[in-house]
Amino acid sequence: MENLKNVKLEIQYNGANYFGWQKQRNHISVQEVLEKTLSKLLQEHIEVTGCSRTDSKVHAIKYVCNFTTNTNIPCNKIKYAVNPLLPDDIVVLNSMKVDEMFHSRYSCVGKTYIYKILNREVRPVFKREGIYHYKEQLCIDKMKAASKFFVGTHDYNAFKSSGSSVKTTIRTIQSINITKQKDEILIQVTGDGFLYNMVRIIVGTLIQVGINKIEPEYIQTILKNRDRKLAGPTAPAEGLYLKEIYF
Amino acid sequence: MENLKNVKLEIQYNGANYFGWQKQRNHISVQEVLEKTLSKLLQEHIEVTGCSRTDSKVHAIKYVCNFTTNTNIPCNKIKYAVNPLLPDDIVVLNSMKVDEMFHSRYSCVGKTYIYKILNREVRPVFKREGIYHYKEQLCIDKMKAASKFFVGTHDYNAFKSSGSSVKTTIRTIQSINITKQKDEILIQVTGDGFLYNMVRIIVGTLIQVGINKIEPEYIQTILKNRDRKLAGPTAPAEGLYLKEIYF
Repeated sequence: MENLKNVKLEIQYNGANYFGWQKQRNHISVQEVLEKTLSKLLQEHIEVTGCSRTDSKVHAIKYVCNFTTNTNIPCNKIKYAVNPLLPDDIVVLNSMKVDEMFHSRYSCVGKTYIYKILNREVRPVFKREGIYHYKEQLCIDKMKAASKFFVGTHDYNAFKSSGSSVKTTIRTIQSINITKQKDEILIQVTGDGFLYNMVRIIVGTLIQVGINKIEPEYIQTILKNRDRKLAGPTAPAEGLYLKEIYF
Repeated sequence: MENLKNVKLEIQYNGANYFGWQKQRNHISVQEVLEKTLSKLLQEHIEVTGCSRTDSKVHAIKYVCNFTTNTNIPCNKIKYAVNPLLPDDIVVLNSMKVDEMFHSRYSCVGKTYIYKILNREVRPVFKREGIYHYKEQLCIDKMKAASKFFVGTHDYNAFKSSGSSVKTTIRTIQSINITKQKDEILIQVTGDGFLYNMVRIIVGTLIQVGINKIEPEYIQTILKNRDRKLAGPTAPAEGLYLKEIYF
Protein backbone atom coordinates (compact mmCIF):
# COMPACT_ATOMS: atom_id res chain seq x y z
CA MET A 1 0.00 0.00 0.00
CA GLU A 2 2.97 2.33 0.40
CA ASN A 3 2.96 2.94 -3.34
CA LEU A 4 -0.64 4.20 -3.30
CA LYS A 5 -0.90 7.51 -5.12
CA ASN A 6 -3.69 10.03 -5.43
CA VAL A 7 -3.88 11.12 -9.07
CA LYS A 8 -5.71 14.21 -10.24
CA LEU A 9 -6.95 14.39 -13.82
CA GLU A 10 -8.05 17.45 -15.74
CA ILE A 11 -10.24 16.24 -18.54
CA GLN A 12 -12.27 17.72 -21.34
CA TYR A 13 -15.35 16.10 -22.79
CA ASN A 14 -18.06 16.57 -25.32
CA GLY A 15 -21.20 15.61 -23.43
CA ALA A 16 -23.44 15.15 -26.49
CA ASN A 17 -23.40 11.35 -26.28
CA TYR A 18 -23.42 10.96 -22.48
CA PHE A 19 -26.04 11.07 -19.77
CA GLY A 20 -23.82 13.39 -17.79
CA TRP A 21 -20.78 12.70 -15.65
CA GLN A 22 -22.34 10.56 -12.96
CA LYS A 23 -22.39 6.76 -13.23
CA GLN A 24 -25.90 5.31 -13.46
CA ARG A 25 -27.72 2.17 -14.45
CA ASN A 26 -28.68 1.65 -18.10
CA HIS A 27 -27.18 4.91 -19.29
CA ILE A 28 -23.68 5.66 -20.46
CA SER A 29 -21.80 8.27 -18.46
CA VAL A 30 -18.39 9.92 -18.69
CA GLN A 31 -17.42 8.53 -15.28
CA GLU A 32 -18.17 4.96 -16.33
CA VAL A 33 -16.16 5.23 -19.55
CA LEU A 34 -13.24 6.82 -17.73
CA GLU A 35 -13.22 4.23 -14.95
CA LYS A 36 -13.36 1.32 -17.38
CA THR A 37 -10.55 2.78 -19.47
CA LEU A 38 -8.33 3.52 -16.47
CA SER A 39 -9.00 0.07 -14.98
CA LYS A 40 -7.98 -1.54 -18.25
CA LEU A 41 -4.85 0.58 -18.56
CA LEU A 42 -3.70 0.25 -14.95
CA GLN A 43 -4.83 -3.36 -14.51
CA GLU A 44 -6.58 -2.62 -11.23
CA HIS A 45 -10.09 -1.58 -10.24
CA ILE A 46 -10.25 2.20 -10.47
CA GLU A 47 -12.95 4.38 -8.96
CA VAL A 48 -12.92 8.02 -9.98
CA THR A 49 -14.22 10.88 -7.84
CA GLY A 50 -15.58 13.79 -9.86
CA CYS A 51 -15.80 17.46 -8.92
CA SER A 52 -19.44 17.79 -9.89
CA ARG A 53 -22.36 16.12 -11.55
CA THR A 54 -23.00 17.46 -14.99
CA ASP A 55 -26.36 17.09 -16.69
CA SER A 56 -27.03 14.91 -19.67
CA LYS A 57 -25.40 16.34 -22.83
CA VAL A 58 -23.57 19.11 -20.96
CA HIS A 59 -19.90 19.56 -21.90
CA ALA A 60 -16.76 20.17 -19.87
CA ILE A 61 -13.86 22.35 -20.93
CA LYS A 62 -11.95 21.47 -17.76
CA TYR A 63 -13.41 18.86 -15.48
CA VAL A 64 -11.41 17.73 -12.45
CA CYS A 65 -11.47 14.24 -10.97
CA ASN A 66 -9.13 12.04 -8.96
CA PHE A 67 -8.47 8.39 -8.16
CA THR A 68 -6.00 6.30 -6.20
CA THR A 69 -3.75 3.76 -7.85
CA ASN A 70 -0.73 1.53 -7.23
CA THR A 71 0.57 1.95 -10.75
CA ASN A 72 4.23 2.52 -11.48
CA ILE A 73 3.44 4.72 -14.46
CA PRO A 74 4.60 8.24 -13.50
CA CYS A 75 1.46 10.27 -12.75
CA ASN A 76 2.21 12.98 -15.31
CA LYS A 77 2.57 10.29 -18.01
CA ILE A 78 -0.82 8.67 -17.38
CA LYS A 79 -2.27 11.29 -19.71
CA TYR A 80 -0.29 9.94 -22.68
CA ALA A 81 -1.13 6.34 -21.85
CA VAL A 82 -4.86 6.81 -21.38
CA ASN A 83 -5.70 9.20 -24.24
CA PRO A 84 -5.28 6.65 -27.05
CA LEU A 85 -7.67 4.30 -25.19
CA LEU A 86 -10.42 6.87 -24.63
CA PRO A 87 -13.18 7.58 -27.16
CA ASP A 88 -12.88 10.68 -29.36
CA ASP A 89 -15.17 12.77 -27.16
CA ILE A 90 -13.16 12.49 -23.93
CA VAL A 91 -9.57 13.62 -23.54
CA VAL A 92 -7.21 13.97 -20.57
CA LEU A 93 -5.57 17.41 -20.59
CA ASN A 94 -3.34 16.82 -17.58
CA SER A 95 -2.56 14.13 -15.03
CA MET A 96 -0.63 14.81 -11.85
CA LYS A 97 0.14 13.41 -8.41
CA VAL A 98 -1.66 15.28 -5.64
CA ASP A 99 -1.74 15.22 -1.86
CA GLU A 100 -3.62 12.25 -0.43
CA MET A 101 -6.12 14.66 1.14
CA PHE A 102 -7.19 16.08 -2.22
CA HIS A 103 -10.82 15.22 -2.99
CA SER A 104 -12.27 16.59 -6.24
CA ARG A 105 -15.72 17.14 -4.79
CA TYR A 106 -15.10 18.23 -1.20
CA SER A 107 -12.11 20.38 -2.10
CA CYS A 108 -14.14 22.29 -4.69
CA VAL A 109 -15.19 25.79 -3.56
CA GLY A 110 -16.57 27.23 -6.77
CA LYS A 111 -17.26 26.71 -10.45
CA THR A 112 -17.53 28.64 -13.66
CA TYR A 113 -19.95 27.60 -16.35
CA ILE A 114 -20.02 29.07 -19.81
CA TYR A 115 -22.95 29.08 -22.21
CA LYS A 116 -22.40 29.62 -25.95
CA ILE A 117 -25.05 31.09 -28.23
CA LEU A 118 -24.74 31.52 -31.97
CA ASN A 119 -26.99 34.51 -32.51
CA ARG A 120 -27.71 34.90 -36.19
CA GLU A 121 -30.75 34.94 -38.36
CA VAL A 122 -29.42 32.64 -41.06
CA ARG A 123 -28.41 29.03 -40.52
CA PRO A 124 -24.74 28.30 -39.85
CA VAL A 125 -22.81 26.75 -42.75
CA PHE A 126 -20.01 25.39 -40.57
CA LYS A 127 -21.05 22.44 -38.46
CA ARG A 128 -20.10 23.11 -34.89
CA GLU A 129 -20.90 21.15 -31.81
CA GLY A 130 -21.48 22.83 -28.47
CA ILE A 131 -23.25 26.02 -29.44
CA TYR A 132 -26.93 26.89 -29.30
CA HIS A 133 -28.21 28.55 -32.46
CA TYR A 134 -30.74 31.27 -31.60
CA LYS A 135 -32.16 33.18 -34.56
CA GLU A 136 -33.92 36.17 -33.07
CA GLN A 137 -31.59 39.09 -32.39
CA LEU A 138 -30.61 39.39 -28.73
CA CYS A 139 -30.00 42.78 -27.10
CA ILE A 140 -26.74 42.26 -25.27
CA ASP A 141 -27.05 45.49 -23.25
CA LYS A 142 -30.37 44.44 -21.76
CA MET A 143 -28.99 40.99 -20.96
CA LYS A 144 -26.02 42.57 -19.22
CA ALA A 145 -28.32 44.81 -17.21
CA ALA A 146 -30.42 41.80 -16.21
CA SER A 147 -27.39 39.72 -15.26
CA LYS A 148 -26.50 42.15 -12.48
CA PHE A 149 -29.64 41.19 -10.54
CA PHE A 150 -28.51 37.58 -10.36
CA VAL A 151 -25.17 38.40 -8.77
CA GLY A 152 -24.95 38.03 -4.99
CA THR A 153 -26.46 35.65 -2.46
CA HIS A 154 -30.07 34.89 -3.33
CA ASP A 155 -32.74 32.24 -3.06
CA TYR A 156 -32.68 30.79 -6.57
CA ASN A 157 -35.71 28.55 -6.11
CA ALA A 158 -37.30 29.98 -9.28
CA PHE A 159 -34.20 28.92 -11.21
CA LYS A 160 -34.26 25.23 -10.34
CA SER A 161 -35.86 22.36 -12.20
CA SER A 162 -37.93 19.98 -10.11
CA GLY A 163 -36.51 16.53 -9.51
CA SER A 164 -33.67 17.42 -7.20
CA SER A 165 -33.82 17.53 -3.44
CA VAL A 166 -31.59 20.08 -1.79
CA LYS A 167 -31.47 21.42 1.76
CA THR A 168 -31.47 25.00 0.66
CA THR A 169 -32.02 26.89 -2.59
CA ILE A 170 -29.79 29.74 -1.46
CA ARG A 171 -26.62 30.09 -3.48
CA THR A 172 -24.06 32.77 -4.25
CA ILE A 173 -23.23 33.91 -7.76
CA GLN A 174 -19.93 35.81 -7.83
CA SER A 175 -20.21 37.07 -11.38
CA ILE A 176 -21.97 36.85 -14.69
CA ASN A 177 -20.03 38.09 -17.70
CA ILE A 178 -21.68 38.44 -21.06
CA THR A 179 -19.57 39.10 -24.13
CA LYS A 180 -20.33 39.20 -27.80
CA GLN A 181 -17.91 38.65 -30.63
CA LYS A 182 -19.53 38.90 -34.03
CA ASP A 183 -22.44 36.47 -33.94
CA GLU A 184 -21.29 34.55 -30.87
CA ILE A 185 -22.54 35.38 -27.38
CA LEU A 186 -20.78 33.93 -24.34
CA ILE A 187 -22.43 33.93 -20.93
CA GLN A 188 -20.05 33.06 -18.13
CA VAL A 189 -21.44 32.34 -14.66
CA THR A 190 -19.27 31.86 -11.58
CA GLY A 191 -20.71 30.69 -8.28
CA ASP A 192 -20.11 28.58 -5.22
CA GLY A 193 -22.60 25.96 -6.36
CA PHE A 194 -25.60 25.59 -8.62
CA LEU A 195 -29.06 24.07 -8.38
CA TYR A 196 -30.38 21.55 -10.89
CA ASN A 197 -30.50 23.28 -14.33
CA MET A 198 -29.87 26.64 -12.66
CA VAL A 199 -27.42 27.98 -15.23
CA ARG A 200 -29.59 26.87 -18.13
CA ILE A 201 -32.69 28.54 -16.62
CA ILE A 202 -30.71 31.73 -15.97
CA VAL A 203 -29.60 31.69 -19.63
CA GLY A 204 -33.15 30.94 -20.80
CA THR A 205 -34.36 33.92 -18.77
CA LEU A 206 -31.60 36.20 -20.07
CA ILE A 207 -32.70 35.27 -23.58
CA GLN A 208 -36.24 36.42 -22.73
CA VAL A 209 -34.71 39.72 -21.64
CA GLY A 210 -32.62 39.85 -24.83
CA ILE A 211 -35.73 39.64 -27.03
CA ASN A 212 -37.57 42.22 -24.90
CA LYS A 213 -40.13 39.79 -23.52
CA ILE A 214 -39.24 40.81 -19.98
CA GLU A 215 -37.44 43.81 -18.57
CA PRO A 216 -34.07 43.43 -16.79
CA GLU A 217 -35.58 44.62 -13.48
CA TYR A 218 -38.11 41.81 -13.56
CA ILE A 219 -35.33 39.39 -12.51
CA GLN A 220 -35.77 40.81 -8.98
CA THR A 221 -39.46 39.91 -9.03
CA ILE A 222 -38.74 36.38 -10.19
CA LEU A 223 -36.14 35.85 -7.47
CA LYS A 224 -38.45 37.29 -4.82
CA ASN A 225 -41.45 35.18 -5.84
CA ARG A 226 -39.37 31.98 -5.96
CA ASP A 227 -41.66 30.76 -8.74
CA ARG A 228 -40.17 28.64 -11.54
CA LYS A 229 -43.06 29.58 -13.82
CA LEU A 230 -42.01 33.25 -13.85
CA ALA A 231 -38.53 32.44 -15.14
CA GLY A 232 -37.71 31.69 -18.77
CA PRO A 233 -37.43 28.24 -20.34
CA THR A 234 -34.44 26.01 -19.67
CA ALA A 235 -31.87 26.69 -22.41
CA PRO A 236 -30.73 23.54 -24.28
CA ALA A 237 -27.89 21.52 -22.76
CA GLU A 238 -25.84 21.61 -25.98
CA GLY A 239 -24.58 25.16 -25.32
CA LEU A 240 -23.46 24.58 -21.73
CA TYR A 241 -19.91 23.86 -20.55
CA LEU A 242 -18.40 23.40 -17.13
CA LYS A 243 -15.39 25.64 -17.62
CA GLU A 244 -13.42 25.97 -14.43
CA ILE A 245 -13.32 24.43 -10.95
CA TYR A 246 -11.89 26.31 -7.98
CA PHE A 247 -10.17 24.59 -5.04
CA MET B 1 -35.60 45.11 -70.29
CA GLU B 2 -36.43 48.21 -68.32
CA ASN B 3 -37.00 46.07 -65.26
CA LEU B 4 -33.47 44.63 -65.37
CA LYS B 5 -31.83 44.88 -61.97
CA ASN B 6 -28.28 44.30 -60.83
CA VAL B 7 -28.43 42.30 -57.58
CA LYS B 8 -25.52 41.96 -55.21
CA LEU B 9 -25.37 38.97 -52.89
CA GLU B 10 -23.23 38.53 -49.81
CA ILE B 11 -22.94 34.84 -49.21
CA GLN B 12 -21.22 32.53 -46.77
CA TYR B 13 -20.14 29.02 -47.64
CA ASN B 14 -18.42 26.01 -46.25
CA GLY B 15 -16.05 25.00 -49.02
CA ALA B 16 -15.37 21.45 -47.76
CA ASN B 17 -17.54 19.80 -50.41
CA TYR B 18 -16.79 22.10 -53.35
CA PHE B 19 -14.01 22.43 -55.88
CA GLY B 20 -13.89 26.14 -55.16
CA TRP B 21 -16.10 28.99 -56.31
CA GLN B 22 -15.46 28.81 -60.05
CA LYS B 23 -17.68 26.77 -62.37
CA GLN B 24 -15.86 23.92 -64.07
CA ARG B 25 -16.52 20.70 -65.91
CA ASN B 26 -17.01 17.48 -63.94
CA HIS B 27 -16.56 19.14 -60.56
CA ILE B 28 -19.14 20.73 -58.32
CA SER B 29 -18.58 24.41 -57.53
CA VAL B 30 -20.34 27.00 -55.39
CA GLN B 31 -21.01 29.15 -58.46
CA GLU B 32 -22.76 26.30 -60.26
CA VAL B 33 -24.99 25.47 -57.29
CA LEU B 34 -25.87 29.12 -56.76
CA GLU B 35 -26.67 29.72 -60.44
CA LYS B 36 -28.87 26.64 -60.65
CA THR B 37 -30.73 27.58 -57.49
CA LEU B 38 -31.25 31.20 -58.55
CA SER B 39 -32.35 30.14 -62.04
CA LYS B 40 -34.92 27.80 -60.50
CA LEU B 41 -36.19 30.42 -58.09
CA LEU B 42 -36.36 33.30 -60.56
CA GLN B 43 -37.46 31.20 -63.54
CA GLU B 44 -34.85 32.71 -65.82
CA HIS B 45 -31.29 31.85 -66.75
CA ILE B 46 -29.02 33.43 -64.14
CA GLU B 47 -25.28 33.93 -64.46
CA VAL B 48 -23.46 35.00 -61.35
CA THR B 49 -20.26 37.04 -61.32
CA GLY B 50 -18.03 36.31 -58.33
CA CYS B 51 -15.50 38.58 -56.64
CA SER B 52 -12.73 36.00 -56.69
CA ARG B 53 -11.84 32.41 -57.37
CA THR B 54 -11.46 30.41 -54.23
CA ASP B 55 -9.49 27.16 -54.15
CA SER B 56 -11.00 23.77 -53.67
CA LYS B 57 -12.23 23.31 -50.08
CA VAL B 58 -11.57 26.93 -49.08
CA HIS B 59 -14.40 28.64 -47.17
CA ALA B 60 -15.94 32.09 -47.38
CA ILE B 61 -17.21 34.11 -44.44
CA LYS B 62 -18.38 36.87 -46.75
CA TYR B 63 -18.19 36.31 -50.47
CA VAL B 64 -19.63 38.91 -52.82
CA CYS B 65 -21.24 38.17 -56.17
CA ASN B 66 -23.82 39.79 -58.43
CA PHE B 67 -26.23 38.95 -61.21
CA THR B 68 -28.85 40.66 -63.35
CA THR B 69 -32.48 39.65 -63.27
CA ASN B 70 -35.95 40.72 -64.39
CA THR B 71 -37.60 39.35 -61.28
CA ASN B 72 -40.31 41.24 -59.44
CA ILE B 73 -39.18 39.87 -56.09
CA PRO B 74 -37.81 42.87 -54.15
CA CYS B 75 -33.99 42.54 -54.17
CA ASN B 76 -33.68 42.58 -50.38
CA LYS B 77 -36.18 39.72 -50.15
CA ILE B 78 -34.33 37.40 -52.55
CA LYS B 79 -32.28 36.28 -49.55
CA TYR B 80 -35.34 34.83 -47.84
CA ALA B 81 -36.58 33.15 -51.00
CA VAL B 82 -33.31 31.55 -52.01
CA ASN B 83 -31.99 30.31 -48.64
CA PRO B 84 -34.49 27.47 -48.22
CA LEU B 85 -33.55 26.21 -51.70
CA LEU B 86 -29.79 26.21 -51.12
CA PRO B 87 -27.86 23.29 -49.60
CA ASP B 88 -26.85 23.50 -45.91
CA ASP B 89 -23.33 24.64 -46.68
CA ILE B 90 -24.22 27.79 -48.63
CA VAL B 91 -26.25 30.67 -47.23
CA VAL B 92 -27.11 34.16 -48.48
CA LEU B 93 -26.41 36.74 -45.77
CA ASN B 94 -27.73 39.74 -47.70
CA SER B 95 -29.22 40.58 -51.04
CA MET B 96 -29.53 44.13 -52.35
CA LYS B 97 -30.05 46.17 -55.50
CA VAL B 98 -26.88 47.86 -56.70
CA ASP B 99 -25.90 50.28 -59.42
CA GLU B 100 -25.79 48.72 -62.89
CA MET B 101 -22.06 49.47 -63.03
CA PHE B 102 -21.26 47.31 -60.03
CA HIS B 103 -19.14 44.29 -60.98
CA SER B 104 -18.05 41.95 -58.17
CA ARG B 105 -14.70 41.20 -59.74
CA TYR B 106 -13.63 44.45 -61.39
CA SER B 107 -14.93 46.63 -58.58
CA CYS B 108 -12.91 44.66 -56.00
CA VAL B 109 -9.77 46.48 -54.79
CA GLY B 110 -8.68 44.23 -51.94
CA LYS B 111 -9.38 41.16 -49.85
CA THR B 112 -8.87 39.82 -46.39
CA TYR B 113 -8.28 36.13 -45.80
CA ILE B 114 -8.27 34.51 -42.40
CA TYR B 115 -6.60 31.23 -41.47
CA LYS B 116 -7.67 29.35 -38.32
CA ILE B 117 -5.35 27.03 -36.44
CA LEU B 118 -6.31 24.95 -33.41
CA ASN B 119 -2.97 24.74 -31.64
CA ARG B 120 -3.12 22.09 -28.96
CA GLU B 121 -1.30 18.92 -28.17
CA VAL B 122 -4.36 16.81 -27.43
CA ARG B 123 -7.08 16.02 -29.93
CA PRO B 124 -10.18 18.23 -29.95
CA VAL B 125 -13.32 16.69 -28.43
CA PHE B 126 -15.71 19.09 -30.14
CA LYS B 127 -16.07 18.46 -33.85
CA ARG B 128 -15.50 21.68 -35.70
CA GLU B 129 -15.23 22.30 -39.37
CA GLY B 130 -12.96 24.97 -40.76
CA ILE B 131 -9.99 24.84 -38.44
CA TYR B 132 -6.60 23.21 -38.92
CA HIS B 133 -5.46 21.18 -35.92
CA TYR B 134 -1.72 21.60 -35.39
CA LYS B 135 -0.27 19.74 -32.41
CA GLU B 136 3.19 21.16 -31.96
CA GLN B 137 3.26 24.36 -29.92
CA LEU B 138 3.62 27.48 -32.04
CA CYS B 139 5.53 30.52 -30.82
CA ILE B 140 3.18 33.37 -31.61
CA ASP B 141 5.81 36.07 -30.99
CA LYS B 142 8.16 34.63 -33.60
CA MET B 143 5.29 34.30 -36.06
CA LYS B 144 4.35 37.93 -35.49
CA ALA B 145 7.95 38.99 -36.04
CA ALA B 146 8.08 37.00 -39.28
CA SER B 147 4.76 38.37 -40.52
CA LYS B 148 6.21 41.91 -40.67
CA PHE B 149 8.57 40.89 -43.47
CA PHE B 150 5.65 39.93 -45.69
CA VAL B 151 3.95 43.31 -45.40
CA GLY B 152 4.53 45.76 -48.25
CA THR B 153 4.96 45.41 -52.00
CA HIS B 154 7.09 42.39 -52.86
CA ASP B 155 7.68 39.76 -55.47
CA TYR B 156 5.90 36.77 -53.94
CA ASN B 157 7.07 34.25 -56.53
CA ALA B 158 8.32 31.93 -53.75
CA PHE B 159 4.80 31.94 -52.29
CA LYS B 160 2.93 30.71 -55.34
CA SER B 161 2.05 27.17 -56.35
CA SER B 162 2.80 26.22 -59.92
CA GLY B 163 -0.13 25.79 -62.24
CA SER B 164 -1.23 29.37 -62.57
CA SER B 165 -0.11 31.83 -65.19
CA VAL B 166 0.03 35.43 -64.07
CA LYS B 167 1.62 38.49 -65.67
CA THR B 168 3.41 39.48 -62.52
CA THR B 169 4.11 37.92 -59.13
CA ILE B 170 4.34 41.32 -57.47
CA ARG B 171 1.58 41.96 -54.98
CA THR B 172 0.96 44.25 -52.01
CA ILE B 173 0.09 42.94 -48.57
CA GLN B 174 -1.36 45.71 -46.43
CA SER B 175 -1.33 43.83 -43.14
CA ILE B 176 -0.94 40.50 -41.42
CA ASN B 177 -2.49 40.25 -37.97
CA ILE B 178 -1.86 37.24 -35.79
CA THR B 179 -3.89 36.76 -32.64
CA LYS B 180 -4.18 33.93 -30.17
CA GLN B 181 -7.10 33.21 -27.90
CA LYS B 182 -6.56 30.16 -25.76
CA ASP B 183 -5.71 27.37 -28.18
CA GLU B 184 -6.91 29.14 -31.31
CA ILE B 185 -4.59 31.12 -33.56
CA LEU B 186 -6.01 33.43 -36.20
CA ILE B 187 -3.87 34.72 -39.04
CA GLN B 188 -5.49 37.53 -40.98
CA VAL B 189 -3.96 38.67 -44.26
CA THR B 190 -5.13 41.73 -46.19
CA GLY B 191 -3.86 42.49 -49.67
CA ASP B 192 -4.77 43.86 -53.06
CA GLY B 193 -4.65 40.43 -54.64
CA PHE B 194 -3.12 37.02 -54.08
CA LEU B 195 -1.28 34.44 -56.15
CA TYR B 196 -2.33 30.80 -56.37
CA ASN B 197 -2.11 29.29 -52.84
CA MET B 198 -0.23 32.39 -51.64
CA VAL B 199 -2.01 32.74 -48.29
CA ARG B 200 -1.69 29.04 -47.55
CA ILE B 201 2.04 29.06 -48.32
CA ILE B 202 2.53 32.16 -46.16
CA VAL B 203 0.71 30.36 -43.32
CA GLY B 204 2.72 27.18 -43.88
CA THR B 205 5.91 29.25 -43.69
CA LEU B 206 4.76 31.09 -40.55
CA ILE B 207 4.17 27.68 -38.96
CA GLN B 208 7.79 26.75 -39.72
CA VAL B 209 8.81 29.94 -37.93
CA GLY B 210 6.47 29.10 -35.04
CA ILE B 211 8.18 25.76 -34.43
CA ASN B 212 11.63 27.33 -34.73
CA LYS B 213 12.56 25.59 -37.96
CA ILE B 214 13.36 28.91 -39.56
CA GLU B 215 14.06 32.35 -38.12
CA PRO B 216 11.72 35.30 -38.76
CA GLU B 217 14.42 37.17 -40.68
CA TYR B 218 14.70 34.31 -43.15
CA ILE B 219 11.44 35.45 -44.76
CA GLN B 220 13.49 38.20 -46.43
CA THR B 221 15.82 35.61 -47.96
CA ILE B 222 12.90 33.55 -49.28
CA LEU B 223 11.29 36.61 -50.86
CA LYS B 224 14.59 37.72 -52.39
CA ASN B 225 15.42 34.29 -53.84
CA ARG B 226 11.93 33.89 -55.31
CA ASP B 227 12.27 30.13 -54.75
CA ARG B 228 9.17 28.13 -53.77
CA LYS B 229 11.39 25.41 -52.30
CA LEU B 230 12.70 27.74 -49.59
CA ALA B 231 9.20 28.52 -48.29
CA GLY B 232 7.20 26.23 -46.02
CA PRO B 233 4.59 23.70 -47.11
CA THR B 234 1.14 24.80 -48.27
CA ALA B 235 -1.14 24.81 -45.22
CA PRO B 236 -4.32 22.72 -45.67
CA ALA B 237 -7.31 24.39 -47.34
CA GLU B 238 -9.67 23.50 -44.47
CA GLY B 239 -8.40 26.37 -42.27
CA LEU B 240 -8.69 29.12 -44.90
CA TYR B 241 -11.54 31.60 -45.30
CA LEU B 242 -12.12 34.50 -47.62
CA LYS B 243 -13.27 36.98 -45.01
CA GLU B 244 -13.79 40.40 -46.52
CA ILE B 245 -13.88 42.01 -49.95
CA TYR B 246 -13.17 45.70 -50.44
CA PHE B 247 -14.72 47.80 -53.20
